[in-house]
Amino acid sequence: MSEVKPFVTLVGAGPGDPDLITLKGIKAIKEADVILYDALVNEELLTYAKESCTKIYVGKRAERLSTSQDYINKLLVDYALTHGHVVRLKGGDPFVFGRGGEELDYVHQFDIPTAVVPGISSSVGLTGLQQIPLTYRGISESFWVITGSTSDGRLSEDLHHAVKTNATVVVLMGYSKLQQIIELYKNNGKGNLPIALIQNGSLENERLAIGTIDSIMEQVHKNLLGVPAIIVLGEVVAKHQSFQKLKQEIQHLEA
Amino acid sequence: MSEVKPFVTLVGAGPGDPDLITLKGIKAIKEADVILYDALVNEELLTYAKESCTKIYVGKRAERLSTSQDYINKLLVDYALTHGHVVRLKGGDPFVFGRGGEELDYVHQFDIPTAVVPGISSSVGLTGLQQIPLTYRGISESFWVITGSTSDGRLSEDLHHAVKTNATVVVLMGYSKLQQIIELYKNNGKGNLPIALIQNGSLENERLAIGTIDSIMEQVHKNLLGVPAIIVLGEVVAKHQSFQKLKQEIQHLEA
Repeated sequence: MSEVKPFVTLVGAGPGDPDLITLKGIKAIKEADVILYDALVNEELLTYAKESCTKIYVGKRAERLSTSQDYINKLLVDYALTHGHVVRLKGGDPFVFGRGGEELDYVHQFDIPTAVVPGISSSVGLTGLQQIPLTYRGISESFWVITGSTSDGRLSEDLHHAVKTNATVVVLMGYSKLQQIIELYKNNGKGNLPIALIQNGSLENERLAIGTIDSIMEQVHKNLLGVPAIIVLGEVVAKHQSFQKLKQEIQHLEA
Repeated sequence: MSEVKPFVTLVGAGPGDPDLITLKGIKAIKEADVILYDALVNEELLTYAKESCTKIYVGKRAERLSTSQDYINKLLVDYALTHGHVVRLKGGDPFVFGRGGEELDYVHQFDIPTAVVPGISSSVGLTGLQQIPLTYRGISESFWVITGSTSDGRLSEDLHHAVKTNATVVVLMGYSKLQQIIELYKNNGKGNLPIALIQNGSLENERLAIGTIDSIMEQVHKNLLGVPAIIVLGEVVAKHQSFQKLKQEIQHLEA
């Protein structure tokens, strides 16, 4: 029997569509002896694994983010020491609210070598597919990606800063805070700011709600949006084709 | 002869390593009748194209960003109308300072249908490969990606806001503004903040400089960094393995 060579690779699986993983990610999956994968990972990606690969679901939903992290950390190390190359397959990118940093810190305590394969973060990928440009000359010189799900349950302090800037803001895991976010923007005089929500982005059941801070709740209810959804706030949202049509219709009615 | 069906797809090629493109990106390249590609795109990706595909270099460097955008816009439309499917292959992601939004706006004026295939932005991908986590529970709840190359040459107003927050900040195309950025952080009492620069990230000639605001220029000179480089600012940079070693060495000397 050959000696076990412990190794852990964090791989970003992208936002949902299995074609939005990188080639490098697929190569890592093909080499894996064990794969630990999350709820938001498309299971089609597991078909790239070799037959002998052990595939373990370690999914958890935003609601109970902290329950099983210690357990996952231990699994990573145990499987690396007993089976060899463990691929930790995570939705989006491992370091964009994926707790990849914590997993690496734990694994490094055991002197197990590691690698990271970046993934398409939903913040960049789902806006891109919807043709909402995160940056646009003369409109936005930056984009700011903020979690809606802080460890103590409050709205991130960063959002209170963000509302005062011209940055395009993307909130991940923030659906349950939508009402609070809208209030924040209204209180800062930004009722007319364009906003979009994208649910199940890049998948067949993708849903979109688009409007302004003042009008978005109506759109969210009309289009029956729910989790998981990303929230995009900024003037660039007006570049979306259906926002343009919305504006034209309003101008037509007012004319 | 079959009828030409004009179509334009913006494709993100990722940060350099040809394995960091998505499967969906490769599929688009395979179908392309014409490819217009940038300086920062790895030319190995062109080998996926069919033999009859016309490949056109439209590279431009950060120094003269605005010279040829109108020309590229016109090429996109001309080739779509005469050849069919045009793939616009861009370094990183098409909407992260890639001027993809402007290109789509131009193409849509001619009622040519379009699609976007997101790419790994260097902001997410190059930090990930270096194992610098953009977010980390208890350290950073967000990351903010800002251009160092605004249309009028000044330092982006967003950086003046960013320095006052706990967000991880990534500056793209900002190497020529490095001294200004360091001064800004020093003036805000952040001389001890960890900072990293990554040049030619994901390629064989990748270079890294890492330190604090106060010490980074020495590292940049020592490691002979130049363009293109990304700048990462924030406490998460201290998670990098060589930063940890640096700290231990200093503690050892002081003991």
